[in-house]
Amino acid sequence: MKSDKISEAVVRRLPVYLRFLNDLQNREIATVSSQELGQRLDLNPAQIRKDLAYFGDFGRKGIGYDVPYLIEKIRHILKLDQQINVVLVGAGNLGQALSNYNIYLKDTMKITAVFDSYPPKIGTKINTLTVQPMDELASTVREQGIRIGIITVPEQEAQKVADILIGAGIEAILNFAPVILKTPPEIRVHAADFTTDLQSLAYYLHEGKDEEEHGY
Amino acid sequence: MKSDKISEAVVRRLPVYLRFLNDLQNREIATVSSQELGQRLDLNPAQIRKDLAYFGDFGRKGIGYDVPYLIEKIRHILKLDQQINVVLVGAGNLGQALSNYNIYLKDTMKITAVFDSYPPKIGTKINTLTVQPMDELASTVREQGIRIGIITVPEQEAQKVADILIGAGIEAILNFAPVILKTPPEIRVHAADFTTDLQSLAYYLHEGKDEEEHGY
Repeated sequence: MKSDKISEAVVRRLPVYLRFLNDLQNREIATVSSQELGQRLDLNPAQIRKDLAYFGDFGRKGIGYDVPYLIEKIRHILKLDQQINVVLVGAGNLGQALSNYNIYLKDTMKITAVFDSYPPKIGTKINTLTVQPMDELASTVREQGIRIGIITVPEQEAQKVADILIGAGIEAILNFAPVILKTPPEIRVHAADFTTDLQSLAYYLHEGKDEEEHGY
Repeated sequence: MKSDKISEAVVRRLPVYLRFLNDLQNREIATVSSQELGQRLDLNPAQIRKDLAYFGDFGRKGIGYDVPYLIEKIRHILKLDQQINVVLVGAGNLGQALSNYNIYLKDTMKITAVFDSYPPKIGTKINTLTVQPMDELASTVREQGIRIGIITVPEQEAQKVADILIGAGIEAILNFAPVILKTPPEIRVHAADFTTDLQSLAYYLHEGKDEEEHGY
């Protein structure tokens, strides 16, 4: 299986490369060096060369990487060159905010359906999508060939929603609820809890403010 | 500087360990093996032992890790054993959703102030916080000793807000706007664009649905 060959850390960096490369392409810049990539993305150039070497020999010494070619390769690796439909469950503030991001997903990956269990939400519109009741989830997932689910429901409902999504045939879940989901091994789950982002950021705060020395 | 010693990938995993360890502690489980951690978090046990070994010799062969001790250590490493105030700029759907997460931040890290530039938003309440106008940002950051900023404004305003935050003395930024910010090297920026989360998830979709073979 491919997912065993490339480390998760590398897979998580590829979309970051892609975003920057798309930005370069919009500015009609045709080549980029690992030094430039490293400087912009706060990564070691050797790390970037190593990451990209997993997928073949892209770079040209002294010239750098061909931007359109690298974009095409990364899109293919990430399966972004095929249509991937996404379902979102939980039409609260966060769910609405994420649905609004749809406009940035220029790619073939789109939120195509939104669900909620709260009756007053059902039938309301978020952009072009109408919030549907949970009992329509399985049939909508099947009809639209949806493969990824986003969970933006409260903590105590997240496991139940995950079970429903998996039962409906979803292959991967992006979970925004601050709980660790119990899922079968073939279902990939990424936790998008923003508290972990914030906590890892704290590590990089400058030393010296109300702090003693560290022993490590 | 400490931030050079430990790789970003490790720092990003520590809050994930912490979340699971807190969960174990709530269930009054006193020790955990790297096997159990690995199984729950979908990581190689050897990777976990290596990550934790950065910070000293925590584990006991055949017994595993002492849960309360490991929690204390990781909290100290991540600077979560000191009060860290956070400011959020952009009180839209996403900003409101993130402010609501405050209740999960049992730790000393809290959003203590929310700002927006849109007059009708100013003075409105999100939980216990009142949305303030941008011209009060610098003084509030100083008075509250705020060290981290969260950006949840539209794409085209993000750079301006980053400049204001940095000018006010912020040390680190969590950026939800889908742009790459230009910031001085001493300011740590994490991009929390959920599209990159979604894109890396697509990599793990099962093979075989409208796909030819892959050359890598």
